[in-house]
Amino acid sequence: MQIGTHTWVIVDGWIPPTGTGSKPEFVSHDTVCIVNAGDADAQVELLLIFRDRDPAGPYRLTIPRMRTHHQRFNDLTEPEPVPVATDFSCVVRSDQQVVVQQTRLDSRQAENTLFSTIAYPAS
Amino acid sequence: MQIGTHTWVIVDGWIPPTGTGSKPEFVSHDTVCIVNAGDADAQVELLLIFRDRDPAGPYRLTIPRMRTHHQRFNDLTEPEPVPVATDFSCVVRSDQQVVVQQTRLDSRQAENTLFSTIAYPAS
Amino acid sequence: MQIGTHTWVIVDGWIPPTGTGSKPEFVSHDTVCIVNAGDADAQVELLLIFRDRDPAGPYRLTIPRMRTHHQRFNDLTEPEPVPVATDFSCVVRSDQQVVVQQTRLDSRQAENTLFSTIAYPAS
Amino acid sequence: MQIGTHTWVIVDGWIPPTGTGSKPEFVSHDTVCIVNAGDADAQVELLLIFRDRDPAGPYRLTIPRMRTHHQRFNDLTEPEPVPVATDFSCVVRSDQQVVVQQTRLDSRQAENTLFSTIAYPAS
Repeated sequence: MQIGTHTWVIVDGWIPPTGTGSKPEFVSHDTVCIVNAGDADAQVELLLIFRDRDPAGPYRLTIPRMRTHHQRFNDLTEPEPVPVATDFSCVVRSDQQVVVQQTRLDSRQAENTLFSTIAYPAS
Repeated sequence: MQIGTHTWVIVDGWIPPTGTGSKPEFVSHDTVCIVNAGDADAQVELLLIFRDRDPAGPYRLTIPRMRTHHQRFNDLTEPEPVPVATDFSCVVRSDQQVVVQQTRLDSRQAENTLFSTIAYPAS
Repeated sequence: MQIGTHTWVIVDGWIPPTGTGSKPEFVSHDTVCIVNAGDADAQVELLLIFRDRDPAGPYRLTIPRMRTHHQRFNDLTEPEPVPVATDFSCVVRSDQQVVVQQTRLDSRQAENTLFSTIAYPAS
Repeated sequence: MQIGTHTWVIVDGWIPPTGTGSKPEFVSHDTVCIVNAGDADAQVELLLIFRDRDPAGPYRLTIPRMRTHHQRFNDLTEPEPVPVATDFSCVVRSDQQVVVQQTRLDSRQAENTLFSTIAYPAS
């Protein structure tokens, strides 16, 4: 089973700088979700593209075969943390076919709001 | 009329563990919606892929011809219930062409929030 | 200029049965948005597919050339009103190329929530 | 690296006419996000299509190579401001390959709500 493609794009990345509610579940976050429904572990690289500085990354993840990985951008540390309140986009590259979806939880106000979209399958 | 394709992927599956508001409509839920706009009943199988355990399923649904089916993951029981507060992805396979959309209602806080996205058409 | 395709699918249609807030803007609604960026008027037909009854429609719309049309399902009346609190899907067919997006506003609780997704381009 | 395509469509454009919360972050807005992951600066034109008037534009943006640009429709001024509380669609054309996502923040009520979707890749 091979499902998906090798390159995906999230355009509207942004980590809300504040939040309300219990932690960690209501900490405002932006998330890249990646599923590997194939037979081999996937080596994944994230490249972050900004408005007024050079890109950051690659951030490296391994997604085992037949596993999913929901990664908050907030929790990435290597090679550098992702700045909050900063517009970015994310290019996801994988050596195996994967599928990618983006979800943001914004709890800056008292009642949180969510959005989610399948990312753009580039190739 | 044949509309859609045979394999679809939802990446960010997650059932919120709590909720507020009247039941059953405001019970927090994650939902897979499947429409069969064709001339034959569709036999559908859902496979759930997790972060740190082997997949669950197949969950079997029959979607009659020219009918839609909005299935809360919460309500799946065979071969096993879907755990709450647990990251998963879902691969939908159908012997007939269908179209798939995911919607989540999260009512953990006092005011609920929704998201929805067309799933990824894999093949 | 011809942009889009002729058949589109919305899977998760549902009109919330109640709402709060000023009218008409905060009346809970589910909406099909259609843009015709071409040189000829588009004749559009909507077919609604339900869970446990035969389809309704066709609902007929004309989208003039270089115009957009945001249609609340709530406001369709011919050949029959769309029932609230009822799962449906919608197949959009157009004789000209168009692009389709779905948006729902749910104001059942005091603070409304929105979702939106580009529909599935079927052919 | 060339990622994306040259023409994109957002169908459900609408700037909420009011908002609550601190400015500028909670000003209700509708946003087009564009990433240029290529080697050359992208010249981008936005055309806005309305329900009952001729289109507006082109609005011109330059997205440098390896940069992202998140543009509130609210802030466009040339050739004319974008009217609030008015249905529109947006055709994005770029001389370089780009990827486009739409996000709306609606803070008309006390607790804001968000939606986002990858735009439709037309060609």
